Amino acid sequence: MMLARHLCLHRISHKYCPVSLCLAINRQITVHRTLTTIPKCFPKHGDITYKSSTYLAKYLHDTSQKVKLDVQESNTNTFTYRTHTCGELRPENEGEKVVLCGWVQFSRLSKFLLLRDAYGLTQCVVSNDTTNLSEVPLETIVKIEGTVALRPKDMINPKMSTGEIEVVINKLEVLNTVDKLPFNLRDYQKPKEQLRLQHRYIDLRFPEMQNNLRVRSNMLHNMRRFLIEQHGFVEVETPTLFCRTPGGAREFVVPTHHTGLFYSLVQSPQQFKQMLMSGGIDRYFQVARCYRDETTRPDRQPEFTQLDIELSFTNLDGVLSMIEQLLYDTFVKPLPRPPFKRITYKEAIENYGSDKPNLTFGLKFVNLRHLFPEKSNDSNFGAYGLPYTSELGKLTAKYKERIREYAKKYNCKVVLNENISKELGMEINEKIKNSIDENNSVIVALGDSENAAQCLGEIRLMIAQLLQSNNLLTVKTDIEPLWVVDFPLFVKGEAGLETCHHPFTAPHPEDVHLLDTDPLKVRSLAYDIVMNGNEIGGGSVRIHNADLQVKIMKILNIDPGKMGHFLNALKCGCPPHAGIALGMDRLVTLACDAESIREVIAFPKSHDGRDPLSGAPNTISDDDKKYYHISTVERF
Amino acid sequence: MMLARHLCLHRISHKYCPVSLCLAINRQITVHRTLTTIPKCFPKHGDITYKSSTYLAKYLHDTSQKVKLDVQESNTNTFTYRTHTCGELRPENEGEKVVLCGWVQFSRLSKFLLLRDAYGLTQCVVSNDTTNLSEVPLETIVKIEGTVALRPKDMINPKMSTGEIEVVINKLEVLNTVDKLPFNLRDYQKPKEQLRLQHRYIDLRFPEMQNNLRVRSNMLHNMRRFLIEQHGFVEVETPTLFCRTPGGAREFVVPTHHTGLFYSLVQSPQQFKQMLMSGGIDRYFQVARCYRDETTRPDRQPEFTQLDIELSFTNLDGVLSMIEQLLYDTFVKPLPRPPFKRITYKEAIENYGSDKPNLTFGLKFVNLRHLFPEKSNDSNFGAYGLPYTSELGKLTAKYKERIREYAKKYNCKVVLNENISKELGMEINEKIKNSIDENNSVIVALGDSENAAQCLGEIRLMIAQLLQSNNLLTVKTDIEPLWVVDFPLFVKGEAGLETCHHPFTAPHPEDVHLLDTDPLKVRSLAYDIVMNGNEIGGGSVRIHNADLQVKIMKILNIDPGKMGHFLNALKCGCPPHAGIALGMDRLVTLACDAESIREVIAFPKSHDGRDPLSGAPNTISDDDKKYYHISTVERF
Repeated sequence: MMLARHLCLHRISHKYCPVSLCLAINRQITVHRTLTTIPKCFPKHGDITYKSSTYLAKYLHDTSQKVKLDVQESNTNTFTYRTHTCGELRPENEGEKVVLCGWVQFSRLSKFLLLRDAYGLTQCVVSNDTTNLSEVPLETIVKIEGTVALRPKDMINPKMSTGEIEVVINKLEVLNTVDKLPFNLRDYQKPKEQLRLQHRYIDLRFPEMQNNLRVRSNMLHNMRRFLIEQHGFVEVETPTLFCRTPGGAREFVVPTHHTGLFYSLVQSPQQFKQMLMSGGIDRYFQVARCYRDETTRPDRQPEFTQLDIELSFTNLDGVLSMIEQLLYDTFVKPLPRPPFKRITYKEAIENYGSDKPNLTFGLKFVNLRHLFPEKSNDSNFGAYGLPYTSELGKLTAKYKERIREYAKKYNCKVVLNENISKELGMEINEKIKNSIDENNSVIVALGDSENAAQCLGEIRLMIAQLLQSNNLLTVKTDIEPLWVVDFPLFVKGEAGLETCHHPFTAPHPEDVHLLDTDPLKVRSLAYDIVMNGNEIGGGSVRIHNADLQVKIMKILNIDPGKMGHFLNALKCGCPPHAGIALGMDRLVTLACDAESIREVIAFPKSHDGRDPLSGAPNTISDDDKKYYHISTVERF
Repeated sequence: MMLARHLCLHRISHKYCPVSLCLAINRQITVHRTLTTIPKCFPKHGDITYKSSTYLAKYLHDTSQKVKLDVQESNTNTFTYRTHTCGELRPENEGEKVVLCGWVQFSRLSKFLLLRDAYGLTQCVVSNDTTNLSEVPLETIVKIEGTVALRPKDMINPKMSTGEIEVVINKLEVLNTVDKLPFNLRDYQKPKEQLRLQHRYIDLRFPEMQNNLRVRSNMLHNMRRFLIEQHGFVEVETPTLFCRTPGGAREFVVPTHHTGLFYSLVQSPQQFKQMLMSGGIDRYFQVARCYRDETTRPDRQPEFTQLDIELSFTNLDGVLSMIEQLLYDTFVKPLPRPPFKRITYKEAIENYGSDKPNLTFGLKFVNLRHLFPEKSNDSNFGAYGLPYTSELGKLTAKYKERIREYAKKYNCKVVLNENISKELGMEINEKIKNSIDENNSVIVALGDSENAAQCLGEIRLMIAQLLQSNNLLTVKTDIEPLWVVDFPLFVKGEAGLETCHHPFTAPHPEDVHLLDTDPLKVRSLAYDIVMNGNEIGGGSVRIHNADLQVKIMKILNIDPGKMGHFLNALKCGCPPHAGIALGMDRLVTLACDAESIREVIAFPKSHDGRDPLSGAPNTISDDDKKYYHISTVERF
């Protein structure tokens, strides 16, 4: 049915509120009733509803078109012995005999019982003397058979979606008893993360976690609908037990009963998806589990999920426009109309000191290299200034110390606004001040060009935070997606050249002639997508020519002999192809305004890769060691 | 749009043929153009189209209702530099300038070139002298710019979907050259499996593999639509790096950089999904990757995919009816209308000698126990007869030998038809012959009841094959789904009682009183779904009471102390719940009429768990061993 814009909004804000909205494919708005998971009485609930409505309003405004409102009422009661969820009953159900199941959220005066499930809260009332509520502790699982009644007018709770009714209990059955809980679900203040993760089965009952997991499920489903139904992609599952991929992160190994032989857990389906291209599956995707043993880095999980996509007969523009349309159509927050902004790696570094710049605020660098004519022959030299409003005043000792640390980390010189005359001379000071707004201060970084820029990039983020907390900076709240392109193909590593992306990335056609003479100058056809300072995905046009692939492997010191299967796949009729992978954990974190990726993962590991629930990793039996022909050694 | 039945069929059989059909959710027929992957010129192609049409016709007949024909034309050309696929052009495209990309399938007279991609074949014709086809080897990747022209009437190929047109080449660009292939794609006879797996990137181009992977993708997508959109399920990704689950299959271990500590790769998300139930995600599913180190068993893969489902506030009937509806709505072949047949484990064993009986044919046992009154006090004794038509005649020595092997394997006595008098006596022979049809022979198995039945079960399958190859048995070609229920909770193991399903399975409420006194008599609330002799899934109602769970663990010799997190999840307010897992590899194998699960997996391992492409598993570096504190030992 085609509805005018205001009608959609009306229906959503009245009949179907509270809802989290998923902007579905095909410019349809899909309102999933399954997302009505956050009972109004919980804190933050109103917020989420409000935000959702705002998103929808903005989306409709941005697209300035009529939309089809596809209200999908999935039935969450099928195949169960409840008749309704605890968020479902309304005055029109008056007199109906119902069966509700859920957790006892609260009871009062031995007469009222607040029953909770994933969909809401319903007040139930004792009608006879046989039901003794005082014997039912909180969080007990009960089944209630009863009759829906209208609440007396003065008892209506407008903040509750079921606030106009109550269920008069005919029969209350305790389905499972409950021990003392390690933390209380009615607390407005959440327990510490460690405790939450240790008892995740309780923590998941909090409305934020319910919302995050449901948004994640819906977002992935909408992405699948976009790829499969609209654009003919095929989801192919590829193995995770494989051989080591040269280059890249450390891969977990898995011993086998063949003595001395190990699988590696894949860090991505890269090789498989390229072999699929050679195999004629020309539009592939997979919601892929990937493994990296990087547990020492914060905010990393040993296993994570990426939306992995590859297609044949395409180029850089093809992939970028596909991802733009995919995100525009399926991301739960409004995005600017495609095409998204693009900047080169060089521009990103020189203007913002980062390959994943946050463009929700200004604070762009000024290039000061020309002020140092004595360095004009040193092509590596760079000098950058970060102008910011003088209203911030002088930095406190704490921040000056952090700046000293950045300078040390990047091995470059950083000069604060007040020291420019002293350290760089009156003349340079005057030239710098003339080149910026008179109300601005400036911090200058000098040294190896890329280092100086990246150092100032970290200072930029610190200053932005400072300015923001002093209400001196306008930061957009919208998501600002950004493509970073023209990455270098190689970076200098400890033992020669290393790949900047991965060994299968195609060099920029304009730079191929530099491969032998000046490889560090060669740009690649790699691209990253960045949202508000977070790298949420990356990919590249791949090498499809076996000879070029061997050449690149040799530059990278990778033995082509170990990659025979892959090189053969290129030799036996492999089409040109390109692809990308989006980090779903981070993307959903942004969608849910969550504080860390652990908030959008059902059972995350803690920082050092440990599972807070079971205590994994654990010791294994001698029998297992014997079977796998391994022994544990303390030191070599 | 609502269309009458004949109109649907008309559209499908003319405009949209060839297609593989997916019976989509919500009683809609979704015709995915993405499934039009098998060019008509390939062998078997006609078959698949014919079968698909048959399925649709039968489905429409069975449901005896009008259906909504939702022709989803996914655009398989977006984001690429081709304008059409090689299966797409029709006479109405005459005169259009087009760009096609693909593999050179065939060239002839230096004038005609047959271009292939995943969607079909198109004939291209050289129009000028600058294009030299003799220099373009088969399987070269080319891009052709040209103009669509109608073929001369006598050149029309009615077997080809693009057989009425050809593309006059304006420009031919070689995108990638090709080495000599290890096998030829135009061979009607496929190469041996080992060679196919070793060069899977070529093998995947065969139309059967293209079809299998696309059917798999679509089937999973339709299952997701059913679960998420119709029934409010939430897909939750759970970890694969976890601790060892007591009981069950051997689990792969993964060393960590914490000395002596290992993860286990999960054999299923069982514990996590039950913790999700406790966490209020009351309708969970996941297309889950699972791992079992059972590489020594044929037709098993070290990693495999299951559709894993769990829901709260339900019971056995709830889960069974959910799966019936799910399969009825999404399986690509027609199924009987739910409810599906149910038999108990006891009935299955006593009538067919198997817990996954194939009911596409008869050959039901007769129980002969009453003919042995001297055994009437031995409750373990069993005697079964397998009647089959005497037209088969005597068995040859080869089959007699196989029967002797079965008898040995199950440690029971098997008597062939001709030996009954001699071995069991005239009187029993007469009684047996009186109890069966006069045109039948009978094979008798005697011994421990369950063993004798299972022995005769294997003989039943052998006899069925024999009868079928002699045209003496009617075997239904339809899929016959069957539930097997009332499995025993425990089986006798080498070191005491073992679980029949897994340690979290609920005992049958009628038998709980026998847990202490006669545990082997206790039935469970486990169920398996069987299709034509293949177990394609299984599940159970779970234990939600912590005390009962501890009791069962103790019977099974499992230390409850090691499962503290799990028992806590039950104690802290866990609703009653039940679930199931469907083996997707086997289910898709049935859907595609494939010969083994390796035909529906993009990159399967071979029998001993090796990857034929890369040779994984491999040796690892000393650096890796050092990092993971392990060493390899030959012998302990």
